[in-house]
Amino acid sequence: MEKCRVTFHPMGKVIEVNKGENLLNVARKAGINIDAPCGGKGSCGKCRVIIEKGEVTTQPTTELTPEEKAMGYYLACATTVESDLEVKVPIESLVETLKIVDAAEMKKKRHAVLENALEERIRAEGLNISPNVKKVYLELDPPNLDDNISDLERIKRALRGQENIDDVYCTINSMRKLANTLRNNDWKITLTLSNANNNLEIINIEGGNTTDRLYGLAIDIGTTSVAVCLVNLLNGAVIESSSAYNAQVTCGADVISRIIYAGKEEGKNLNQLRKLVVKSINELIVEMVDEVGISPEEISSIVASGNTTMTQLFLATDPQYIRLEPYIPTVTYTPPIKASNFFLKANPEAYVYCSPNVASYVGGDITAGVLASGIWQSETITLFADLGTNGEIVFGNKDWMMTCACSAGPAFEGGEISHGMRAATGAIDHVSIDRTSREPKYTVIGESKPKGICGSGLIDVISEMLLSGIMDRRGKIVRELNIPRIRVDEESGLAEYVLAWAEETETNRDITISEVDLDNFIRAKGAVYSGCQTLIESMGMDFSMVEKVLIAGGIGSHLAIEPSVVIGLLPDIADESFSFIGNSSLTGSYLILLSQEMKAKVEEIAAQMTYVELSVYPGYMDSFVSSLFLPHTDLEAFPRVKNLLGE
Amino acid sequence: MEKCRVTFHPMGKVIEVNKGENLLNVARKAGINIDAPCGGKGSCGKCRVIIEKGEVTTQPTTELTPEEKAMGYYLACATTVESDLEVKVPIESLVETLKIVDAAEMKKKRHAVLENALEERIRAEGLNISPNVKKVYLELDPPNLDDNISDLERIKRALRGQENIDDVYCTINSMRKLANTLRNNDWKITLTLSNANNNLEIINIEGGNTTDRLYGLAIDIGTTSVAVCLVNLLNGAVIESSSAYNAQVTCGADVISRIIYAGKEEGKNLNQLRKLVVKSINELIVEMVDEVGISPEEISSIVASGNTTMTQLFLATDPQYIRLEPYIPTVTYTPPIKASNFFLKANPEAYVYCSPNVASYVGGDITAGVLASGIWQSETITLFADLGTNGEIVFGNKDWMMTCACSAGPAFEGGEISHGMRAATGAIDHVSIDRTSREPKYTVIGESKPKGICGSGLIDVISEMLLSGIMDRRGKIVRELNIPRIRVDEESGLAEYVLAWAEETETNRDITISEVDLDNFIRAKGAVYSGCQTLIESMGMDFSMVEKVLIAGGIGSHLAIEPSVVIGLLPDIADESFSFIGNSSLTGSYLILLSQEMKAKVEEIAAQMTYVELSVYPGYMDSFVSSLFLPHTDLEAFPRVKNLLGE
Repeated sequence: MEKCRVTFHPMGKVIEVNKGENLLNVARKAGINIDAPCGGKGSCGKCRVIIEKGEVTTQPTTELTPEEKAMGYYLACATTVESDLEVKVPIESLVETLKIVDAAEMKKKRHAVLENALEERIRAEGLNISPNVKKVYLELDPPNLDDNISDLERIKRALRGQENIDDVYCTINSMRKLANTLRNNDWKITLTLSNANNNLEIINIEGGNTTDRLYGLAIDIGTTSVAVCLVNLLNGAVIESSSAYNAQVTCGADVISRIIYAGKEEGKNLNQLRKLVVKSINELIVEMVDEVGISPEEISSIVASGNTTMTQLFLATDPQYIRLEPYIPTVTYTPPIKASNFFLKANPEAYVYCSPNVASYVGGDITAGVLASGIWQSETITLFADLGTNGEIVFGNKDWMMTCACSAGPAFEGGEISHGMRAATGAIDHVSIDRTSREPKYTVIGESKPKGICGSGLIDVISEMLLSGIMDRRGKIVRELNIPRIRVDEESGLAEYVLAWAEETETNRDITISEVDLDNFIRAKGAVYSGCQTLIESMGMDFSMVEKVLIAGGIGSHLAIEPSVVIGLLPDIADESFSFIGNSSLTGSYLILLSQEMKAKVEEIAAQMTYVELSVYPGYMDSFVSSLFLPHTDLEAFPRVKNLLGE
Repeated sequence: MEKCRVTFHPMGKVIEVNKGENLLNVARKAGINIDAPCGGKGSCGKCRVIIEKGEVTTQPTTELTPEEKAMGYYLACATTVESDLEVKVPIESLVETLKIVDAAEMKKKRHAVLENALEERIRAEGLNISPNVKKVYLELDPPNLDDNISDLERIKRALRGQENIDDVYCTINSMRKLANTLRNNDWKITLTLSNANNNLEIINIEGGNTTDRLYGLAIDIGTTSVAVCLVNLLNGAVIESSSAYNAQVTCGADVISRIIYAGKEEGKNLNQLRKLVVKSINELIVEMVDEVGISPEEISSIVASGNTTMTQLFLATDPQYIRLEPYIPTVTYTPPIKASNFFLKANPEAYVYCSPNVASYVGGDITAGVLASGIWQSETITLFADLGTNGEIVFGNKDWMMTCACSAGPAFEGGEISHGMRAATGAIDHVSIDRTSREPKYTVIGESKPKGICGSGLIDVISEMLLSGIMDRRGKIVRELNIPRIRVDEESGLAEYVLAWAEETETNRDITISEVDLDNFIRAKGAVYSGCQTLIESMGMDFSMVEKVLIAGGIGSHLAIEPSVVIGLLPDIADESFSFIGNSSLTGSYLILLSQEMKAKVEEIAAQMTYVELSVYPGYMDSFVSSLFLPHTDLEAFPRVKNLLGE
């Protein structure tokens, strides 16, 4: 097999690969995270690179303009290596692999939310801190010729005497430490006991008295990002928390592209996806434990919540049947599994609990989120929407809960939008447009030049385009305005609005909103709204009966209510009905980690929810089509928008 | 670090190592199994090699004669590599790494013993075949949009309906197979369910109906050899059985040298020993499953019995404290542990059960052996002796059992005997000496020229030397006979008897029995006899009250009663009292594998046995010293020997 040397600039990474390899794969192998929300199908146009030197073959694409092609741009996913190459990776093609930009801010917020969640629970219900692990300090009598039982029998005898514990299983890893830990510590030791699968297990043995140290991890496995909290299991304090991209993003932006990717290469890709998410989590763990000065071995319990696909990729169970009718996941209730099976940086004998799934598109992130939201204990009729890479909705109160998933796609996180990007440095996050001049003003995350536009920015710009008359209620740009910011492509006849000129941007390309983008975004918001409507109507109710709207998920923290109502993403009800509850999946993981009652509760919640499969639900398609207007076909349902539009 | 190339002849293996490395280690790394019963301490003189070319440094030794030194002989364990080397490994220095010679014969015997054991149990007690695993065949309803529970919930529902099984844990490996096994087999599958640690677990999932295939392994982990039986768990049939050297023998012949070896190199050696025994077992497994045409994944349950040190090395728990007063093992009752933790070639989720130990020197091989012997259900007062690399004794009946371990050392298997070797090809196994001419006749295992002498040959030759007057009752050779076969070393004054002249032997060296050998062997037999005596006397009884003597272990199968009585290894009671029960540890493993009652029983046996620590038992030392005569100081206790000696 002929070998080729591929050099990536500006990072200067060099890798030797076989001639004929796919350039996107080559970049992944070199550890360069090129953005490819479509998973390498050639349809998103995000993985653009410039071939500075060398030969490639490439497939035809409409994602690049003739000018771009002339400048040497190629789609990495559609290009194969034919010789030694020099490849330039433009900044906008890179996934930020490091921390999400507003880490400090998010961390503060997350601390607040989690501490609040805990305090509220303790106040409201007298929640006991009762994790599934505990520590026991033992001072043993050293053996002698008359009392010569084995080390393990000696420990069991002491547990019986001191703790009234009759039966305990000793894991092999603890057994291997036993002899020397006992003798090097004058027969004074601390056991970590874990309660799982109907057994009490000795999962660790440490010298001396370490009962003041007991740690766990709460994890949210998002499609786009993972968040991890290091928790003191003795008092519930959040010691550290951190988040990062889920490294799987280089294999596709949404669950469907991940599933397709996982199905290729006979299980190799599935395993690669498993490794990538574990790598993302492990990097956060290592960073946190180093910061705090504990050993990963001290992590004794782990709870992870993710959507059904993320859970299955974490478990490395084949997710194909999530995508195919009748949409069946491998597991809903995942039993606790040892950390060693995941290769997580923690005590290998610690148990990992995955929050239960309800169905293929309503997963553990939602059951954990509902747990955190408190819907299950409240009379208030609540609409809960998790707007992340997917959109999941729960409607109900403590007596009943309906749930569904909307095929919202990745538009809220910038997917399938020409200049869309995630809420990271360089993302335009807020926009206003002058009603007269139609000139925009925007703010950018991280105070840099703009690179693209994120979900909240998109909501703003669409709302503003509607209110300033740049776009009509069908999402069509008003060509007649005849301003330089409105351009029409002669060939396709499609129009676009220029939000930022090339000279203002980091990428030196205009940042625009095209009619294709508008279509995509309107479909996404329409899917969410009609999903909510269908759930509510399935109970014979309407939006006016909704007493509370909880918005969770990545988009939640940047979302403004008014523009969301204007575009018809959120219903037109009183502003004070809305609350943003942040990463409720993480908060749920945290509560389950701290309390065995909460674990029982989240399983009850999963069992209690009635799942509505929208794709086959009568009336849903009509409802969806009616939502493809701004704000909606039925303007009467949006009185304040009607007012703003002056109709 | 300077590198040296070491070439081993006649095998032609070449290895590159650092200058200064120990030559015995180098040979191990090259996969050449040089015999080193002392574990590389320089005291046994077995690891002799010839340096044909190159430079070494070596430590002074008395294990080589000046002539041997002149011929280029070195002890590998005392020699370090200083340059490129050409090393010849004489045949007598090699451990046979392949099968023990009389495999076919042993296999036949083992089948007979095991089948007998089973049939006897079934007859005697109506033993149910009740392994800890079973298979369940399910035909599931395929899912549809109205019945869209997850794959695992579907299986659980079917188990509840069909098998009345309420709760089952699904292992991660089974979970990973679930989706595709169901769909590729038209929703008809077979589960393997394992019962361990209070849980029912799905340890495998196969397509179609495989309920007619369920396999397990019974293993004996001996210090010298490992034996494995592949068992049909549905009917108890022994499908295949095989044995081989425990590859640990290259690190020392007896448990003490293994423990010392394990204690070096900060855990690396311990892990190496674990790997070596697992390698020996895995090689047998692969050979057997290939022969029979099953997949290692179909092995669903495993029972292993070994002495306490072998068990701990198998578990990789530090065995140092077995050797140090007060002689404490890490575990007596080892909980069931997954095969994946051992890297055994079997279903990784299958459980491995290790037979319980009683104390540091009475292990799972003895509890399993006692289970197989039937002592626990018999009124007959029985003496059970397992004469392998160590000597363990049990005395009792169904109401009480005493047990002890004798520091017999490895003499019965040829250890610490100048020309001693194991019962393999080239071993002299039977000897007679003409009473007048004092000329010997011998037989050799495998019809080859003799290379050395094994345990049964040693017993014969010592008995014959006594009866023909070559040696007196103290084990001193009678120099006055003045025959060529008796030689006296001028320097040391020690005598030896030449059993085979160099020209008759495979090694071209005389095979002799020296007074040092006699001393070592007499100490070994004295330890066993006095151990038996002490146990019997501890119950206020004497040898005349022993109704049955069961002899188990490697030596048992070759042992002749009369010469054993003559040298005072066995008591002088009626010949019909003695039975040889072969590898009772393996038979015990087999019974436990087949029956959960037998597993409960072996734990009862371990709890019931009273362990006597001979080293601190009053009167034992006197008893031992009295046994250092042939047959014994007290000739009156051996009437038939008294008669044979004409006294």
